[in-house]
Amino acid sequence: MPRPGTKNLITDVAGLKVGHATDEAAGTGVTVLLCGADWAAGVDVRGGGPGVRESEALAAENLVGRAHAIVLAGGSVFGLAAADGVASALSVRGIGLHLKRDSLAIPIVPAAVLHDLGNGGNKDWGSTPPYRELGVRALSSARAEFDLGSHGAGRGAMAGLVKGGIGSASLDLGAGLVVGALIALNSVGSAFMPDGKTLWAWAFELDREFGGATPPGAGMDLSDPSPQGSRLAEIGRLQAGANTTLGVVACTADLSTAECKRVAMMAHDGIARAVRPAHTPFDGDTLFAVASGASPLGRHPARAAALARIGSAGADCVSRAIGRAVYCA
Amino acid sequence: MPRPGTKNLITDVAGLKVGHATDEAAGTGVTVLLCGADWAAGVDVRGGGPGVRESEALAAENLVGRAHAIVLAGGSVFGLAAADGVASALSVRGIGLHLKRDSLAIPIVPAAVLHDLGNGGNKDWGSTPPYRELGVRALSSARAEFDLGSHGAGRGAMAGLVKGGIGSASLDLGAGLVVGALIALNSVGSAFMPDGKTLWAWAFELDREFGGATPPGAGMDLSDPSPQGSRLAEIGRLQAGANTTLGVVACTADLSTAECKRVAMMAHDGIARAVRPAHTPFDGDTLFAVASGASPLGRHPARAAALARIGSAGADCVSRAIGRAVYCA
Repeated sequence: MPRPGTKNLITDVAGLKVGHATDEAAGTGVTVLLCGADWAAGVDVRGGGPGVRESEALAAENLVGRAHAIVLAGGSVFGLAAADGVASALSVRGIGLHLKRDSLAIPIVPAAVLHDLGNGGNKDWGSTPPYRELGVRALSSARAEFDLGSHGAGRGAMAGLVKGGIGSASLDLGAGLVVGALIALNSVGSAFMPDGKTLWAWAFELDREFGGATPPGAGMDLSDPSPQGSRLAEIGRLQAGANTTLGVVACTADLSTAECKRVAMMAHDGIARAVRPAHTPFDGDTLFAVASGASPLGRHPARAAALARIGSAGADCVSRAIGRAVYCA
Repeated sequence: MPRPGTKNLITDVAGLKVGHATDEAAGTGVTVLLCGADWAAGVDVRGGGPGVRESEALAAENLVGRAHAIVLAGGSVFGLAAADGVASALSVRGIGLHLKRDSLAIPIVPAAVLHDLGNGGNKDWGSTPPYRELGVRALSSARAEFDLGSHGAGRGAMAGLVKGGIGSASLDLGAGLVVGALIALNSVGSAFMPDGKTLWAWAFELDREFGGATPPGAGMDLSDPSPQGSRLAEIGRLQAGANTTLGVVACTADLSTAECKRVAMMAHDGIARAVRPAHTPFDGDTLFAVASGASPLGRHPARAAALARIGSAGADCVSRAIGRAVYCA
């Protein structure tokens, strides 16, 4: 049976590194996922208030379809600057597309941001928001081991009415095929059922990664589509894009850009299963998918079945990463 | 608290009628949802093997954005002809867009099909598939009460390895705001957890509509992303589009076409919560959303919160309709 990878982190996909940079005073931060090289990448934006950069470069019909790093950031629109810092720093390292030999390295750094501006912290940064520098710092701290919970892009995050944060999980499908997810959870919806204690994701827990989840009892009433555990009840104070679940699904398969998009699409089901409601007009829910290419999937039709299995594993890893984000926050 | 509508069917949204036509020998059929007039409509296609017509007419940036009827059909590509039959029959009744007074009525009839060709029944129809006629018959039988289970588009449907079918459910949110869903369930994925008896949708059941679902026990192992209850294990015999969950979410709100799309997007979460895996390359998962306009939602920002609530209710109704489809099959 498939089991979590050695670290139970997205970095069980060989070649990946993750780094956080946190601004404690501002109550915000940035998380960077560094690929081993330019990896095939896709994205699926499902929230009604997204803040995203370089998504068009990842469209299957466009030229590039690859990424050197993915940035998840707090700070709403200001957080997009984190990717500028990462792109510049990677270029200096010589990491990026080279249009000619010895030409400037052009790193493709897609990014998505969550809105933590209303969750406390000193945002009195005037014309110099901290995100570009946080991006550079997060990149420089990237390594195979990283912390879950209230760090990086998860520092200012909320999940419904409780603390959100960073989560990650992996699944080793055998024969070199590994899938993992990295999530920054800042959802309108709640990760808990209306009993306030059972994680929606409870059934997906492996190896007590949420601390040992128990099944819900009978007789729960789910008739209210705007449960108390979500922030819908007090939504009057919210604006479009004021929340968001962001993440990346990674795998070792030799996926195309279009196949990465299918994995990202299926992985959104992992948000749906772990957060209710999800994908509202107030969320900017965005998932990237990246693939190292180390593990060839073969040809049609077996390839499509393998892709379905990776997408399903990606969705499960997303649900588990959400459970861990709340547990570790 | 919100409760199911009087009939607990999508037709609790006033003005809607649903009709089935079933070809028992061929083991297939057609289901038609007739709107009270041209209703605002949107669509979200999430499966990897869709078969859809008139989806472009429902794109928010295009002209029409409305529908007179929605067709769900078996028969894969052949099932699309059902909508031709429905469009012709509606035009004869004078139902459709009128570009000039007394001009030919032009009905907008979006449709989506599921693949039941491999599920038994005599498909020896040569050059005269039955779907156009089934569409006409389904329309003529449309009424506020209709059967769930193995009827119409659900007649040849499978849900994972067990019988699929037609499901429906509704939720009365009060003050005239009613939401409902109609589903034809023919998924690759299973509606049951790996214990083989607990519906994924169990927690969403209202008023014993699944026969009285009980919570799952502890200790279930969900580590395999391709569970036995799905057809992924035997996927070699399947082709793209060989499965599919189709449906419609309806409400009484005065939604725009773009808002209908947001409801359809959120409603896909109801598939994710009730079927695992979903949205695979082998599914043609497609959801329409229609809105009668009887219940004004008001303006921004309260409007967006109301839209989120409708989308969340739509997702819940989809999960419940899936539970009922399996229960009634």
